[in-house]
Amino acid sequence: MNNYEKYAEMSPRDVRELIRKGEITSPTSGMCAGYAQANLVILPKEDAYDFLLFTQRNPKSCPILEVSDVGSRDLPFIAPGCDIATDLPKYRVYEHGVLTGEYTDVSQFWRDDLVCFLIGCSFSFESEMINAGIEIRHITQNCNVPMYITNIDTVPAGKFSGKMVVSMRPIPHDQVVKAVTVTAALPKVHGSPIHIGDPSVIGIKDINHPEFGDPVEIKEGEVPVFWPCGVTPQSVVMNVKPPFVITHAPGHMLITDVKNVDLKE
Amino acid sequence: MNNYEKYAEMSPRDVRELIRKGEITSPTSGMCAGYAQANLVILPKEDAYDFLLFTQRNPKSCPILEVSDVGSRDLPFIAPGCDIATDLPKYRVYEHGVLTGEYTDVSQFWRDDLVCFLIGCSFSFESEMINAGIEIRHITQNCNVPMYITNIDTVPAGKFSGKMVVSMRPIPHDQVVKAVTVTAALPKVHGSPIHIGDPSVIGIKDINHPEFGDPVEIKEGEVPVFWPCGVTPQSVVMNVKPPFVITHAPGHMLITDVKNVDLKE
Repeated sequence: MNNYEKYAEMSPRDVRELIRKGEITSPTSGMCAGYAQANLVILPKEDAYDFLLFTQRNPKSCPILEVSDVGSRDLPFIAPGCDIATDLPKYRVYEHGVLTGEYTDVSQFWRDDLVCFLIGCSFSFESEMINAGIEIRHITQNCNVPMYITNIDTVPAGKFSGKMVVSMRPIPHDQVVKAVTVTAALPKVHGSPIHIGDPSVIGIKDINHPEFGDPVEIKEGEVPVFWPCGVTPQSVVMNVKPPFVITHAPGHMLITDVKNVDLKE
Repeated sequence: MNNYEKYAEMSPRDVRELIRKGEITSPTSGMCAGYAQANLVILPKEDAYDFLLFTQRNPKSCPILEVSDVGSRDLPFIAPGCDIATDLPKYRVYEHGVLTGEYTDVSQFWRDDLVCFLIGCSFSFESEMINAGIEIRHITQNCNVPMYITNIDTVPAGKFSGKMVVSMRPIPHDQVVKAVTVTAALPKVHGSPIHIGDPSVIGIKDINHPEFGDPVEIKEGEVPVFWPCGVTPQSVVMNVKPPFVITHAPGHMLITDVKNVDLKE
């Protein structure tokens, strides 16, 4: 029995409790079917204004689900009762841009000036695409989604700037329009694609060598379709090498109490 | 020849130049048809984080079109070439919550720590409704839209909190659904209504006595429909009585280079 089979039908609150107790330390993919998962960036208040403005100026790559109050470990809107310092299965701590450790609990690092940014994840729109009859290749191949650094500039804000990171899914020609309309209905989890077709147009040199994640097969009659990716904010934060930042470890997301369907506008 | 007739067909850039020269000091309603107009709130950096977070948590009443860089009078995204301190026909300066003056130019008050917030205005969706065949009563009656303070709490952020302000338009029963779908397509200018029907449900005691603007006639067979209003952020800022804030004078908006149709997502 794999994670998907064990945890798909459990409530987010119950899974977060198992994570908090240290009984789950694995990636969260497939857990709590139908509920949104979120990327995490924790920064000191002194960097929070620039980062919040960066997300405001780049809503497609950085759709904010919630920003905590300064110093608070609560997320009253998207995950009431959660403790953000314990309820993700794995965290990364970076100091001056250097990964200094991975932890299953970051309580020991907590400070009164930290602000938590929870950013929507394409996981949410993938389940909608599957419901619409679109195959998601990296799920079929049981690997991570391929992600690429593009030549598309994000809009800078204060100290934060950099290139957009995108995720790619191969889509059959006759389903491309459906893939656009299904994802466009979910702007809080990246929304519609940023590019359809020729990867070189957005600066991707080799589609078979993604910068993050795993390559996937593009079959005859399929088009690579690219969506703004939640790795963008982490990538941009890393460019800046702030003195202190905590993020989720890749694939180890916060499972929220928000249903994917409630992210439609 | 009234303002509408004189300026409806001019470009935003040309009208802003006339405003800058002091040749236009009147309300901007009807100018530059098809282009979005924006509410203005200018705050010192020390209050800007809380206010930006407030807008993030209250996107329906505070849809941000652009936030300036600290100290900058430029708006490179929505009005390239504009000078925010001179290009609105009338401004208000408040000190500790007290209106200390109205000015056609606020250059004399400019400081290096000021941040400008440009917030979407329902003006944009009204032209879409008219195109869809829906009468806008306050336009027909040639008066200001009626606005009400509700019992709906905004989501607080730092020092900012307060009740939502709504605008009301009477809509015939058979056009209510169309009014919802037309405005829902424009989330950057308040989007869909917050309430349809009985005003008392949202704490409005007397529909004929709006807190802001003018009362309008509700005819037999019409329903009052309520939208989150761009007066909300100003109202919330005034609650807090910050040491220094500049806003537009009511009706004297920034005319942007963004077409209403480009605000659709």
